[in-house]
Amino acid sequence: MPADRTLSDDRGLPLPGMFGDRIIDAANSLARWSDSADGLSCTYLGPAHRAVAGELCAWMKQAGLQAYIDGVGNVVGRHASARPNAKTLVIGSHYDTVLNAGRYDGRLGIVTGLLVAEHLAKAAVALPFHLDVIGFSEEEGVRFPLPYIGSAALTGRFDPQWLERSDADGVTLSTAMRNADLDPDAISTLARKREDLAGYIEVHIEQGPILLHENLPLGVVSSIAGAARFAITITGDAGHAGTVPMALRRDALAAAADVILLVEQRCATVSRLVGTIGQILVPNAASNVIPGRCDLSLDVRAADDHVRDAAIEDLRAGMADIQRRRKVTIEIKEHSCTPAVACSQQLRKHLDQAIADAGMKPFALDSGAGHDAVMFDGLTEVAMLFVRCGNGGISHSPRETVTPQDADAGARVLLQAILALAAEAN
Amino acid sequence: MPADRTLSDDRGLPLPGMFGDRIIDAANSLARWSDSADGLSCTYLGPAHRAVAGELCAWMKQAGLQAYIDGVGNVVGRHASARPNAKTLVIGSHYDTVLNAGRYDGRLGIVTGLLVAEHLAKAAVALPFHLDVIGFSEEEGVRFPLPYIGSAALTGRFDPQWLERSDADGVTLSTAMRNADLDPDAISTLARKREDLAGYIEVHIEQGPILLHENLPLGVVSSIAGAARFAITITGDAGHAGTVPMALRRDALAAAADVILLVEQRCATVSRLVGTIGQILVPNAASNVIPGRCDLSLDVRAADDHVRDAAIEDLRAGMADIQRRRKVTIEIKEHSCTPAVACSQQLRKHLDQAIADAGMKPFALDSGAGHDAVMFDGLTEVAMLFVRCGNGGISHSPRETVTPQDADAGARVLLQAILALAAEAN
Repeated sequence: MPADRTLSDDRGLPLPGMFGDRIIDAANSLARWSDSADGLSCTYLGPAHRAVAGELCAWMKQAGLQAYIDGVGNVVGRHASARPNAKTLVIGSHYDTVLNAGRYDGRLGIVTGLLVAEHLAKAAVALPFHLDVIGFSEEEGVRFPLPYIGSAALTGRFDPQWLERSDADGVTLSTAMRNADLDPDAISTLARKREDLAGYIEVHIEQGPILLHENLPLGVVSSIAGAARFAITITGDAGHAGTVPMALRRDALAAAADVILLVEQRCATVSRLVGTIGQILVPNAASNVIPGRCDLSLDVRAADDHVRDAAIEDLRAGMADIQRRRKVTIEIKEHSCTPAVACSQQLRKHLDQAIADAGMKPFALDSGAGHDAVMFDGLTEVAMLFVRCGNGGISHSPRETVTPQDADAGARVLLQAILALAAEAN
Repeated sequence: MPADRTLSDDRGLPLPGMFGDRIIDAANSLARWSDSADGLSCTYLGPAHRAVAGELCAWMKQAGLQAYIDGVGNVVGRHASARPNAKTLVIGSHYDTVLNAGRYDGRLGIVTGLLVAEHLAKAAVALPFHLDVIGFSEEEGVRFPLPYIGSAALTGRFDPQWLERSDADGVTLSTAMRNADLDPDAISTLARKREDLAGYIEVHIEQGPILLHENLPLGVVSSIAGAARFAITITGDAGHAGTVPMALRRDALAAAADVILLVEQRCATVSRLVGTIGQILVPNAASNVIPGRCDLSLDVRAADDHVRDAAIEDLRAGMADIQRRRKVTIEIKEHSCTPAVACSQQLRKHLDQAIADAGMKPFALDSGAGHDAVMFDGLTEVAMLFVRCGNGGISHSPRETVTPQDADAGARVLLQAILALAAEAN
């Protein structure tokens, strides 16, 4: 971990600037590990992913935390409370990435939590709750494709049937776990209990342009949009590209084009609704073969579950029309569906207060992206602190940026909010 | 090779039925070799491809031909003429396949030529020309993607710049050849000379429904449609599927959907024109990432070059519109362009006569598919004999079928046409 250059003010509190560079340096350091030679890709249980877990665990130990890697690959570091029957406040985010990712998505939150916990541990600050900093092993859903594997295990939402899901190479989740010396049979033992939790706070880059537009380094999330993910399989007839007249074709890719435009058009009709087809595959594709099959992913999100469900209903009807018109078969399989999550009023209040105390303007915004925080909804109070990103708010891209100043502000606000929560609990 | 069960009539000519089962058995035997565990995929210079070359070469030697594998992987077997300065009549087709292919595309023509040459060699029939049966190593353009690698080398049309083209794993054509013990530097020496060629005849399955519809086992090709192949790269902006409003997206896959429908609609406006997008790739795709880039193949064909060129001009204009409207970049790169080929009147006459002599109705049809024959256009007289396929004429699919009776008729007609050509040359 980048070396501690901590400076404290006369109240023993960290001075502005002490966290920022270390957060950026730590994110850069973790980005050395990648599945691919160029760019950053760190997918669940690949060699890069295992290396990052090892490095995070070592950093946590250096920071004075009790640290370990759990059975699903989460890296957990605790600044323990001396209080009997102490509950646990969790500060978490994920360390897996999308393909060709940025350096801050997920990791900014883990590293921020880690540095704040280090500050508290090294200063021997006694808290009325355990403080667990958790690097979740899987949130993006790239490999299997199943999002939230790490946080689902920790919140008792891991469905054992997922173990039979396969990646693109046909490796099941169960096999991948065993190959990485993880124990799929022990996943159920990882679930935290409602009565043991004091709350969940996640620091994350905004991954959008709103804070940039508002000229604010930080924002507090009011609600997290629900996301429904589907796998769509279109089956038509393969054939020779030269010999089958256009009128006689049942081209699965042409039907997919209709589906892509349907999603785009329907989701553009309502604000705060988005629909994305991110993955497309024509199996056994060749330039001179009419596609006989096409597989698509579909991701639909809205801050309001009713808006999202109405859109999905229309998309299903539209796909049924395409199926009839093109004489193809369209199968739609729901992979996952998470409802919209309202963030905790109490935790938001502490975060807003810390922002104001640091001389910034408190600001509320929705999260269009899903986050590990979603898994904690219903189990404990949930809050999220967004840090501004640059370059128009771009994320899931190597062009993702965060300034050390903004990262620093996020860490200081998190620290202040934790201390305020501790004071309230005492 | 399946055993010879030859029976001759009182003129020493093969009896109906003697070739058919052996052709089907040989195609089944070659289909044992595949790149994949399920189905038939035999792409250029993979292990299956090398095994098929070895088996074809062994069969040719068994058949009494002078046989070898040349520097680009073509398998060549000769029934030599004793005549000084004899020209060469080439009977050829390809042994590579598309992915998840049928058993007869390409291979039917090689095996038919091989059995006919065996019949002539074993009966010691003296011909005024050498008879070369050639299994071309690459016609489908799956791996690099470059069609006609084998026949281009043999006709002096191999462009040395192709050697730097890469497959999906980044392996160059040059490296792939060296890994297979082929010598890319010697390719230019393979080119046959115009003055040495007596003609080119290719037997091939129709890969369409016309003969089936006409209830005829055989047809003689009048012209082969020209094919233009393009690589299209669309670049937009990647972004997070949850945080970028629909109106602010520059989604490369949504632009691709527009392109797919443009091609489909424009090519449906004229008969005997077809346009196909067979391959699509979103690099670094994930279900929660807005596609920032999309790569497409485009294949446009028509029996008339003017019809094809007009369509391509309209498609380019349409893509320029999509580019402007969606604020994406669309790059269009022409990979290959072959003009339509008119078949030889003289060779067609001999094939028609042989069909009539066998008691069938001569029938002329266009070829919508490109074939190795295209490479011989301009160098020597070119002809093609189509054999009916079943299942609605499907090809490039495991559902491709040919009956032993139809395959047999094709071989007997080829044999008769060769003997008629020989008689004419004497």
